[in-house]
Amino acid sequence: MRCIMLQPMNMFFGGLATMMLVCYLTWSTQGREIKRFISQQKDVLCVVSLNDTRPGLQKDDLPVIYFITPTYPRREQVAELIRLGQTLMHVPNLHWILADDSATCNPMVIDLLPRFGLPYTHLASPMPEIYRHVSIVPRGVANRRAALAWIRANIKSGVIYFGDDDNTFDLKLFKEIRDTRKVSMFPVGLIGEYSISSPILKEGKVVGFFDSWPAKRMFPVDMAGFAVNIEFLLQHPNATMPYKAGYEEDRFLRSLGLTLDQIEPKANGCTEVLVWHTQTTKRTPPVLRIDSVLDNSLKDLLQTMTYLGIGSMSDSHGVKTYATKNGKSHLL
Amino acid sequence: MRCIMLQPMNMFFGGLATMMLVCYLTWSTQGREIKRFISQQKDVLCVVSLNDTRPGLQKDDLPVIYFITPTYPRREQVAELIRLGQTLMHVPNLHWILADDSATCNPMVIDLLPRFGLPYTHLASPMPEIYRHVSIVPRGVANRRAALAWIRANIKSGVIYFGDDDNTFDLKLFKEIRDTRKVSMFPVGLIGEYSISSPILKEGKVVGFFDSWPAKRMFPVDMAGFAVNIEFLLQHPNATMPYKAGYEEDRFLRSLGLTLDQIEPKANGCTEVLVWHTQTTKRTPPVLRIDSVLDNSLKDLLQTMTYLGIGSMSDSHGVKTYATKNGKSHLL
Repeated sequence: MRCIMLQPMNMFFGGLATMMLVCYLTWSTQGREIKRFISQQKDVLCVVSLNDTRPGLQKDDLPVIYFITPTYPRREQVAELIRLGQTLMHVPNLHWILADDSATCNPMVIDLLPRFGLPYTHLASPMPEIYRHVSIVPRGVANRRAALAWIRANIKSGVIYFGDDDNTFDLKLFKEIRDTRKVSMFPVGLIGEYSISSPILKEGKVVGFFDSWPAKRMFPVDMAGFAVNIEFLLQHPNATMPYKAGYEEDRFLRSLGLTLDQIEPKANGCTEVLVWHTQTTKRTPPVLRIDSVLDNSLKDLLQTMTYLGIGSMSDSHGVKTYATKNGKSHLL
Repeated sequence: MRCIMLQPMNMFFGGLATMMLVCYLTWSTQGREIKRFISQQKDVLCVVSLNDTRPGLQKDDLPVIYFITPTYPRREQVAELIRLGQTLMHVPNLHWILADDSATCNPMVIDLLPRFGLPYTHLASPMPEIYRHVSIVPRGVANRRAALAWIRANIKSGVIYFGDDDNTFDLKLFKEIRDTRKVSMFPVGLIGEYSISSPILKEGKVVGFFDSWPAKRMFPVDMAGFAVNIEFLLQHPNATMPYKAGYEEDRFLRSLGLTLDQIEPKANGCTEVLVWHTQTTKRTPPVLRIDSVLDNSLKDLLQTMTYLGIGSMSDSHGVKTYATKNGKSHLL
């Protein structure tokens, strides 16, 4: 496990940031380290682990896939991350960059990540406050920008892919994107009014796009519908993603100077679906009202619940709670 | 790959069913076989595969987990099954029983199942028509009854577990339930008004339940919150699940003659959460109106879409569709 510096995104603050970077051992027994750095975003590099403890999944000749997942604290977060992590466990030479929309490093995420045996980078990358108040919030942009900054500062080659924590990824996808030379593209299922979004090919070349929200975009594609070679990314030092909801993909791809004829179609000439925009139903975590002193396993379970962010307890307000035995219930 | 008979659930029809069972080779190159049988439910045994082609995951000393998944045709079905199948791929000695609420064997499911390398049984187990018109439809009961009938007819030992296709399963769960002697129980996350449902323990024994919908149930638990040893199940030949929405778990467990002191608590004394009732947002598959003759990759992609059940095409009605190039759109 090593500690790697995250390059400040704003060069003006570069000198200041370098002086202020302090790398201190927080979880000394596990060798985890945390750094805070100054940038326009208040990003925190929580943990970097380069260990891959999965037997038989290190293959020297394969480019590494840097799988970038923007995430944010919510009731469903822990379940989503477990499910996604267990999918990624199958993929050789994959480094998971998990960027959380949170001001500080979430202990639940810190505890969760090592269990998958994957190399990973954990960033706390809160959305700047100003964007939380616009009419359509540009979710996940701060996270992806933080991940791109970490890539630019630390990585020389490989492939990046933006994979949300509620999407579904067919394992075939990873084989397809691994040999991306510049930018590869492919269909995304369960998205928009058409239920699908994809480049359209003729004689092996991209001749247009099929997407229910064209919005005059040059590249009307979903975030999950393309992968980018890192050497190609590094050739475009100013390429980035805007805080403009709906236009993140298009502007990012345009900032790479991409042209239609450079696009490498995947998924059998864009006729198969290997990634799905599944969405998880969300609910607000409850506050459970518990007046009595618990002297049983429920005490620890409810602490687990609070730690995981799926609910909390109060002795003064919230949902009335009951325990049931032999079909009879009594107030807690 | 072998063909195994499914015992008729209604003994009155037993003789008739035996006569009518016809086992014919449909996919001769792959050795897949299909049988139709007569029972109260119009169940079809689509495919049984006992092959486990996952390297290193066959362990002679482990009881087999029979993982029963009720499913039904919908826009999200294929994505859910891919995601779940990829989770189950990690689990040694697991046999996936997939029971589809469909009158016939869905070709999409037939094609999908072999790719995970798991042993599996694929059943088409449509809900009897009468239950489709009640106020609260008892979803998944026909499927689980068909799976139980297949277990009773063919399996002598192991553990059964009911795992819906949209739930999230921590891999630790499988280690916990594998040594179930009679019935094991554990918490389920993201469920009901409490966000959690669990047995309550004191000094290692179940003394009650914490569930937001007690409904005077003896066992107010979720379908994902318990596992049953197959030898114990077979000791109760009449044990079954009722077509009574909300009471399926309780009545099934009561039909096993279960008592509180027989319950084996798992997940660190019911203080951890290893299974999550994640729900996927559902939408109706669109009809895409396409008037022009397609001479590009979109033609094949839209056929894939129809085959997967995520949408369909029409030249007379439906959502107007456009192709986009260089920011300009034209009607298809």
